[in-house]
Amino acid sequence: MQSIHEVAVRAKQTARRLASATTREKNDALEAIAQGVEASTARILQANAKDLEAAAQSGLSHALVDRLRLDAARLQAMARGVREVAALPDPVGRIERLDSRPNGLRIGKMTVPLGLVGIIYESRPNVTIDAAVLCLKSGNACLLRGGREALESNSALVAVCAEALERTGLPREAVSFVRSTDREGVREMARLSGVLDLLIPRGGEGLIRFVTENATVPVIQHYKGVCHVYVDAAADMEMALAIALNAKTHRPGVCNAMETLLVDAECAERFLPRATEAFRQANVELRGCPRTRALVPSMLPATDADWDTEYLALTLAVRVVDGLQGALDHVALHGTGHTEAIVTNDHTRAERWIREVDASLVLVNASTRFNDGYELGLGAEMGISTTKLHAYGPMGLEELCAKKWVGYGTGQTRR
Amino acid sequence: MQSIHEVAVRAKQTARRLASATTREKNDALEAIAQGVEASTARILQANAKDLEAAAQSGLSHALVDRLRLDAARLQAMARGVREVAALPDPVGRIERLDSRPNGLRIGKMTVPLGLVGIIYESRPNVTIDAAVLCLKSGNACLLRGGREALESNSALVAVCAEALERTGLPREAVSFVRSTDREGVREMARLSGVLDLLIPRGGEGLIRFVTENATVPVIQHYKGVCHVYVDAAADMEMALAIALNAKTHRPGVCNAMETLLVDAECAERFLPRATEAFRQANVELRGCPRTRALVPSMLPATDADWDTEYLALTLAVRVVDGLQGALDHVALHGTGHTEAIVTNDHTRAERWIREVDASLVLVNASTRFNDGYELGLGAEMGISTTKLHAYGPMGLEELCAKKWVGYGTGQTRR
Repeated sequence: MQSIHEVAVRAKQTARRLASATTREKNDALEAIAQGVEASTARILQANAKDLEAAAQSGLSHALVDRLRLDAARLQAMARGVREVAALPDPVGRIERLDSRPNGLRIGKMTVPLGLVGIIYESRPNVTIDAAVLCLKSGNACLLRGGREALESNSALVAVCAEALERTGLPREAVSFVRSTDREGVREMARLSGVLDLLIPRGGEGLIRFVTENATVPVIQHYKGVCHVYVDAAADMEMALAIALNAKTHRPGVCNAMETLLVDAECAERFLPRATEAFRQANVELRGCPRTRALVPSMLPATDADWDTEYLALTLAVRVVDGLQGALDHVALHGTGHTEAIVTNDHTRAERWIREVDASLVLVNASTRFNDGYELGLGAEMGISTTKLHAYGPMGLEELCAKKWVGYGTGQTRR
Repeated sequence: MQSIHEVAVRAKQTARRLASATTREKNDALEAIAQGVEASTARILQANAKDLEAAAQSGLSHALVDRLRLDAARLQAMARGVREVAALPDPVGRIERLDSRPNGLRIGKMTVPLGLVGIIYESRPNVTIDAAVLCLKSGNACLLRGGREALESNSALVAVCAEALERTGLPREAVSFVRSTDREGVREMARLSGVLDLLIPRGGEGLIRFVTENATVPVIQHYKGVCHVYVDAAADMEMALAIALNAKTHRPGVCNAMETLLVDAECAERFLPRATEAFRQANVELRGCPRTRALVPSMLPATDADWDTEYLALTLAVRVVDGLQGALDHVALHGTGHTEAIVTNDHTRAERWIREVDASLVLVNASTRFNDGYELGLGAEMGISTTKLHAYGPMGLEELCAKKWVGYGTGQTRR
């Protein structure tokens, strides 16, 4: 078996070819992958059955087994997803604009691939195809490393990609796969300086911290999302209730769901009893600060730990704050740079929120659930960066690229 | 004395205030710094004299002593530089554009400061002011760590900044300084996860590798520049000669100077003898590949190591290559992602060069010396990034910022 370093170097050697592939070449490869997923359904499901069997033997939780499971419908959705990425505009080679310098040199910035992108992810095998396809479309080679429990499924999906690349004249190693599933392999990937141009760890906080701690390659982190909705006294109370309910209950298990509701003291009496009723009807468990519980005594008390907890469940912390400044202070202390929403009709407060809150998406009068590549118009995404460098928010095709300067001269020299 | 961590945390606490400072507040602080440099000339030169004395005792080289030395004229230039940055447009708070999503949510990207930026640099004390001023204008707090030999000068300059900030109502810790000058201090800075939002090491390759190896914070690297000029057979030979001479001799000691000249075999006989003559008149030592020496036998032979050497001196490696493809292959192998120029009048080859060469600035018919923040229109810069993530090329005010998403809704919830 090849070492991780050897696999990575072979993948990297394809990066130059990938970077100069035309949009048509890349789209042809993507279509071949979609067809490959359809044509190889039996083979992929066979591999998946092995993973499921091993999962059953090792007593994997029902939720994890469900994330692992593939079926004909899920493979159909996968192929559809590939074709959607093929239909997106190709960012590579775009020049933003060409400005003329005083000496006549025309200067612009061109979008170019990063090179070799590493992705470390956990149980869901469809990430294999998502990641491969986003990297290919953005002209990058990729080095994938999935979870142990999905090893057979992932291998089968990578084989589909490799065959599709070969069939359409692109190097098969452009989608490369690391079979090692231990922490040592993660460490090795994180230390591939000069080979890996970017590493994206997707998974629990432990994995991300381990990668960050050990990395010599650039890493983009996707930490947890403790997202807030702040209901200002100048809010339309109906709108505030609808947004808060949507942010909490639309899909509670995802990172852009609201975890803490902040309520302006000035409207707490008007808002909280009604909101409590609505959340209870939606089976949401509420945990309140003392001022909240003074208004709704039946609510459980929140502890300090609640303000920093990503429940990913039908649980919500509620805190009464002293106006906008109180909300800004709470978010500065407990926010995770993910998504923060205010509900207000006060223009000045809305603008202060937009300007002063540090998060990858800052919203006025809308649900936190909109922090998503599709909803923001990127078409597809590779997770949501909560670190500011390079990308802040959903990572689409553009975010998998860099921008180099280009200059068109007519013989300019420096004086 | 406070620990590095304590200094950093206090600096970080000012980041929120800095991020919401108005352009006027920041410009007032910059003007106060410029005035402070002028008013404190005696104090700064006194501190500098101590550094110079210590340097003389420790036998520092003439070149290093010269980089260390301040005088009234250099301080005047420093103050002028500060006012130039004040005159630049403020990138913070700019929204690129607001697109409407199908549900009416208006979505855009707003430029925001990174937070706390760390800069590690070596002997030149003027970097202290350059870095502080670029960080302040872009709304960032900064944590500076200069070289041991400039400790007194740097401390005096940081004191000027702190006083200016205080006088204009901004927190003095927004420009903070690390007095430790050992490697342990560098390591500590590199591991300030969650406190430092970006670390820029400026200096020798050893420093940069040490930081990269130890960092848990995001790092932007400024590695060496082995820059090429490729003279294509379809070039105007006069233009090619002028560009090559300028790229090598205009300022040989900087990273955007040419280190290797590539000549298309088809025009080598026409170009090389004349070019050799011109370079020799400019006192440039030439080292040629065997094909070059077949045409100019008097030239010294180049060894393999020459293709990867950044001479930073009047020395030039020369290689004959087989056309554009040969040049592209050489640059892919030996280029350092800095600056690469082609001289040609062939449109197709020019476009292939622009598209296929991986470097922070890719040029057609212009000197490599144009890779510079002022020349590219950024107004000022904090070095040239040779890594693709976040910034590729000169880092100006924009590159010291991130872009967050902002959304203006009217009650949108997700369906």
